[in-house]
Amino acid sequence: MFPNENDEIHYFFLFLQLMKFKASQIAAILNGTIDGNEDVSVSKLAKIEEGEKGSISFLSNVKYTSFIYSTKASVVIVNDDFKPEKKISATLIRVKDAYQAFTQLLTYYNQAKLDKKGIESPSFISDTATIGNEPYIGAFAYIGENVKLGNNVKIYPQVYVGDNASIGDNTTLFSGVKVYSESVIGNDCILHANAVIGADGFGFAPTEKGDFIKIPQTGNVVIGNKVEIGSETTVDRATLGSTILKDGVKLDNLIQIAHNVVIGENTVIAAQTGVAGSAKVGKNCMIGGQVAIAGHITIPDNVKIGATSGVASSPKKEGVTLQGAPAMEMRDFYRSAAVFKILPELKKQIDTITKKLNQNQHAKPKYDKN
Amino acid sequence: MFPNENDEIHYFFLFLQLMKFKASQIAAILNGTIDGNEDVSVSKLAKIEEGEKGSISFLSNVKYTSFIYSTKASVVIVNDDFKPEKKISATLIRVKDAYQAFTQLLTYYNQAKLDKKGIESPSFISDTATIGNEPYIGAFAYIGENVKLGNNVKIYPQVYVGDNASIGDNTTLFSGVKVYSESVIGNDCILHANAVIGADGFGFAPTEKGDFIKIPQTGNVVIGNKVEIGSETTVDRATLGSTILKDGVKLDNLIQIAHNVVIGENTVIAAQTGVAGSAKVGKNCMIGGQVAIAGHITIPDNVKIGATSGVASSPKKEGVTLQGAPAMEMRDFYRSAAVFKILPELKKQIDTITKKLNQNQHAKPKYDKN
Amino acid sequence: MFPNENDEIHYFFLFLQLMKFKASQIAAILNGTIDGNEDVSVSKLAKIEEGEKGSISFLSNVKYTSFIYSTKASVVIVNDDFKPEKKISATLIRVKDAYQAFTQLLTYYNQAKLDKKGIESPSFISDTATIGNEPYIGAFAYIGENVKLGNNVKIYPQVYVGDNASIGDNTTLFSGVKVYSESVIGNDCILHANAVIGADGFGFAPTEKGDFIKIPQTGNVVIGNKVEIGSETTVDRATLGSTILKDGVKLDNLIQIAHNVVIGENTVIAAQTGVAGSAKVGKNCMIGGQVAIAGHITIPDNVKIGATSGVASSPKKEGVTLQGAPAMEMRDFYRSAAVFKILPELKKQIDTITKKLNQNQHAKPKYDKN
Repeated sequence: MFPNENDEIHYFFLFLQLMKFKASQIAAILNGTIDGNEDVSVSKLAKIEEGEKGSISFLSNVKYTSFIYSTKASVVIVNDDFKPEKKISATLIRVKDAYQAFTQLLTYYNQAKLDKKGIESPSFISDTATIGNEPYIGAFAYIGENVKLGNNVKIYPQVYVGDNASIGDNTTLFSGVKVYSESVIGNDCILHANAVIGADGFGFAPTEKGDFIKIPQTGNVVIGNKVEIGSETTVDRATLGSTILKDGVKLDNLIQIAHNVVIGENTVIAAQTGVAGSAKVGKNCMIGGQVAIAGHITIPDNVKIGATSGVASSPKKEGVTLQGAPAMEMRDFYRSAAVFKILPELKKQIDTITKKLNQNQHAKPKYDKN
Repeated sequence: MFPNENDEIHYFFLFLQLMKFKASQIAAILNGTIDGNEDVSVSKLAKIEEGEKGSISFLSNVKYTSFIYSTKASVVIVNDDFKPEKKISATLIRVKDAYQAFTQLLTYYNQAKLDKKGIESPSFISDTATIGNEPYIGAFAYIGENVKLGNNVKIYPQVYVGDNASIGDNTTLFSGVKVYSESVIGNDCILHANAVIGADGFGFAPTEKGDFIKIPQTGNVVIGNKVEIGSETTVDRATLGSTILKDGVKLDNLIQIAHNVVIGENTVIAAQTGVAGSAKVGKNCMIGGQVAIAGHITIPDNVKIGATSGVASSPKKEGVTLQGAPAMEMRDFYRSAAVFKILPELKKQIDTITKKLNQNQHAKPKYDKN
Repeated sequence: MFPNENDEIHYFFLFLQLMKFKASQIAAILNGTIDGNEDVSVSKLAKIEEGEKGSISFLSNVKYTSFIYSTKASVVIVNDDFKPEKKISATLIRVKDAYQAFTQLLTYYNQAKLDKKGIESPSFISDTATIGNEPYIGAFAYIGENVKLGNNVKIYPQVYVGDNASIGDNTTLFSGVKVYSESVIGNDCILHANAVIGADGFGFAPTEKGDFIKIPQTGNVVIGNKVEIGSETTVDRATLGSTILKDGVKLDNLIQIAHNVVIGENTVIAAQTGVAGSAKVGKNCMIGGQVAIAGHITIPDNVKIGATSGVASSPKKEGVTLQGAPAMEMRDFYRSAAVFKILPELKKQIDTITKKLNQNQHAKPKYDKN
């Protein structure tokens, strides 16, 4: 899967800083056994060949085995069946699979790293906002009037939460997310950096002079629970009523969700796709990258749409797989696309036939005369 | 139009906080008449079935009529012709169309809500910047050297306005907008969250070694009056001279406008479209979502371009409607697309003909012998 | 190249503020000679017809010549061979090419303008961060724990640099850039406003219930030297290991680079293109706008891909030029696209043939009887 996974991890090692852990604590996390001093502390990950005092490393790929005898790392994670041929100064933590244990450690580290708490200064929190237990509010974050934050909410630096917005328990807004007023975000959601929720829908009424008058966008955005939204994705507020992302929706980066759109439960959409105004997308759909879905249409449940497709009308059946612009059933698209590739030859073939037939037609009178 | 509009609004009700209004003030706004205590105050919108003291609700859909007799809402907006069958404790405001009156109230609320004033702290305003009357400058906003802000400008939190930029009267920059130095933005414009104006155009000169040298982008961006720009849209500065959006241009979200592009008056562009370097787009054009317009071409006035099209050369006529990649007249595109769908059958038909003709040709000698 | 370059520059003139320079200093920068008072100071650029005391202008286009006798500009840049016909009050700086000298001045101004130094207040800098020599850190910037900033780094206002990230010498992060934890950015890079580096890759494992569990994204992003990244571009962190942009890569605006992607040296990608997870793009490739590159494929070195193409499988040869979705060799695509345009006529031609052949077949028995 990762042809050179160890090398990749080795590369990665250079950058990571840990909190301070004892070998015994790490062994407990990894469900491993200790060979050596269990009280030695580490605060850093390092490549085995570059390990130094206070760092932890791992040995999985046999080509790095020789380094375990010379490494200055304080702790090395090894496979259960590793048998040293010489004396090793490092404390060993033996686990079933050293590589997997290491990824487990990364995940643990990741969770610990993201478990920020407290309110940094300066931040701007309106007197009328209510904040749940154990918040993280980063510096330069802005919490508007009447905002409601649930418990264990994490608001990273430079986030903006407009007046009257509400954000559910355990939801994380990464740096630069902008939530316009009246938006409602559920529990256990993750919004990535610079996503924009609740900006005005794109609605203008033409005048006789050829210019446009803005139609006020007085609705809002309502986002369910366990929704993840990628960086730079935009979800516009409704003209009236709500633009809705239901529970479990996952949106990748740079996606456009227009006003009054509804996306059904557990539908997953890849990067740079756009859903135009008032379209309704069913539940459990899987939509590829750079897809365009036209306004006011309905995508039934369980539909799959291949990358770069353009869907201009409502598919009639649940569960179909679509491709192309305009979109059609995927197997039909690929059959037609195969012929598209040979269209010049096909045209030549047709022209040859026509020519031949015309010659035959000139020739025909002979037969007619027979 | 909205099949279940009342339900949508009912949903919406949950989130909205009003300033404190007397029934008499709301009746005046809505041009309605009062039935009951005109001095009762409300500060909240609520569903009619969930109304509580201090809230205002409305009754339009007859299926909710029963709730008006039990609601605890202090004020209910009703249609002129509503005849109570029992005693109602709430103050009634009678209007021609309760539903429309409610949307009017939302619009009013929207305007009031967006009418922020004052300078929040901390913000960063250069000593050399000049600021017009009645500004709103949100916390963590940054106003650079020699910046000129007109009257009634609204700069939301976390906006950046670079050195020497100027912003006209009544223009609003929502949270996270970034305006690079020297950019010029007109009057009555709205820029939505995280839009970026005036970043470097994408220009590099290749060297003999295969790498690239950056071409300095020393121009700027000039935006006219009454322009609206969506969230996350990028308008790059010119290499030299100006990238120009003329009066009345409306750009949706996630649009790319490259260096030295000019967009004509009142042209409207939907989300995720890209206009490449030095292209000129005429006035009163309507361009769909995810369209690609090639560099250095000219789109005449009044051209319409369907979503997901790719326009690689200058259309010759004003007012044409284009579709496809490469783009052609829309009706021609759909005719060709209809044949694309049956290409496999068409190929079979051709192969059958060829086979038949070859058989005939084999058969022909017989005739020739006759 | 610029049909009305002087007009464009004249337009531009309105907005530019210079630091204070003596005529002699400007002449030295431009390698020009002085005609008049070399001690006169200017601090502003102006159109020649609108020049005022303390401003510098230029004369290149002959149609503006008459203004040089009446301008109040203190300094005017002219071509070497310019011969005044009347008395001129301004100091002249004579250069080989006044137009080119002016663009040189703009470039100089641009460099000086961007050469910001110092740490503005308020900004948030972790105690554990290390900062090189001569930094610029703008107001409301956030520098997390253990961050390492090289020498001469410029961090514009409202930038976020997450924990453990490192940024090389001479690199500039414009306003609103968000760098997640553990990201590594090389030397001499430029990241434009609101770019996001290191957000979670889009990875979810489906459950039997039809919803999804998030796969932890514990890798990072590694960016080489001399890389430029456009506004609103997103580069996701790897699931494990690193998403890598090698030296000299240039990315335009609104591009999506998914987790575990590798982009080779000096590859250039235009706006709104997306590269899906684990794809590998070779070196010295040139990729147009709105291109989609599928996950897990490999693009060889020196490949060119036309705008709006969709590449779903690995091209076999280096250096090919591709177009279309699905992509094929560009010349083949345009041959097929030419036939696509006439598909309705082609279908008619085929139907005519079929009809004729069927008539012939009806007619055939006659011959058979002969």
